[in-house]
Amino acid sequence: MSMKYLTAKLAQQIDEELMNQAGAFSIDQLMELAGLACAQALARVYDKERYPNVLVCCGPGNQGGDGLVAARHLGMFGYTPTIFMPKPGSKDIYQRLKSQCDNMKIKTIPPSNDTSALRDALSSSNVILDAIFGFSFKGPIRSPFDSALPLLSGSRLPIISVDIPSGWDVEEGNVEGVGLQPDVLVSLTAPKLGVRSFNGRHFLGGRFIPKTLEEKFELNLPEYPGSDQILELKE
Amino acid sequence: MSMKYLTAKLAQQIDEELMNQAGAFSIDQLMELAGLACAQALARVYDKERYPNVLVCCGPGNQGGDGLVAARHLGMFGYTPTIFMPKPGSKDIYQRLKSQCDNMKIKTIPPSNDTSALRDALSSSNVILDAIFGFSFKGPIRSPFDSALPLLSGSRLPIISVDIPSGWDVEEGNVEGVGLQPDVLVSLTAPKLGVRSFNGRHFLGGRFIPKTLEEKFELNLPEYPGSDQILELKE
Repeated sequence: MSMKYLTAKLAQQIDEELMNQAGAFSIDQLMELAGLACAQALARVYDKERYPNVLVCCGPGNQGGDGLVAARHLGMFGYTPTIFMPKPGSKDIYQRLKSQCDNMKIKTIPPSNDTSALRDALSSSNVILDAIFGFSFKGPIRSPFDSALPLLSGSRLPIISVDIPSGWDVEEGNVEGVGLQPDVLVSLTAPKLGVRSFNGRHFLGGRFIPKTLEEKFELNLPEYPGSDQILELKE
Repeated sequence: MSMKYLTAKLAQQIDEELMNQAGAFSIDQLMELAGLACAQALARVYDKERYPNVLVCCGPGNQGGDGLVAARHLGMFGYTPTIFMPKPGSKDIYQRLKSQCDNMKIKTIPPSNDTSALRDALSSSNVILDAIFGFSFKGPIRSPFDSALPLLSGSRLPIISVDIPSGWDVEEGNVEGVGLQPDVLVSLTAPKLGVRSFNGRHFLGGRFIPKTLEEKFELNLPEYPGSDQILELKE
């Protein structure tokens, strides 16, 4: 039995089950483990001596929260993250996650009407963590991300995307051709249909699915090694 | 500069700073990372082939919550944890953490007026995770733990204690001689004064102290390796 690739609807349903009364997880817990996995995957591929400066790009949804958690852990690991979050999420948790980054003295690119601050940050970055759009993304890409994505792509920096590369359709992939082309992907809980043809290094993170839920949704997840929070998928 | 060993008061103060408005951490986040570190330390020392059955002993305070998180992660790692929590904490978070363990089909020893269920569980366990009393412990040891601790000690099973071995004075150590004698210790954030003379394997976990806080309290923490969430201290 091979691992299941999730529709957007199924990914949403699993997320809800984890957090409903039965699943009992708080979003704080799930984001903490998801963001830690993203930071650990980045550290596995891009060592901090050669890639010290990480531009962490956060969207306004839950994936932006994962990005903020990852930024904090990257700071703990000795990287120098910079946050690009042009459209901060309104939920209380984003503000707390952002404060935690501020306490680590992690810089955030100031909001701006033009792209010069982002260009500057890109010129001093070594790698991009793309936590802009997640499995609830529905195109088209709106401002300010419509002007940001081409800059990220144009930078030629290595990109590690969370769950679904930003700009890709969650189920169809990069059909519009406007999405990022990451070198590394971290799929959370299980990969989404849209990344079936992704052929870079592919990690699984979010090691928190109880066996009962895995069986209910027939996810057929591979076994994580030891006590690791990430697992590299091989063809 | 050597690492600081904390008084009970300072440990309490650091915990409060992490969670106050400035620190911005939720208890869910801190417990998740602390419990994960405990589970990973156990997995580092006691492999699941030789030590599959872990008796996770949880007290009624925050350390019991760390224990529940550790039990869940141990279940994810492929161990078979059993929870001994004779006096469950009343906070909402314990109930959620307990539900998460129930969802993993992790067994809990049923409450009982005698110690037979605990004796039975001990006879089929390979290692004990001691998350009974933490840095806010003040003796004497009260029921039902006064009768449980001698049974845990008498089992001769290997014991891994969280933060302060249960029964030890947080600052003075095992002065009463009634405390557990663990083989392994996981100190969270920084070791407490009472474990200065501990000479088993000693890990540090709880990798979430911002540099500013570390400097403010002059903790002089050693550097964690890579993206690991635990660090083994060596003399």
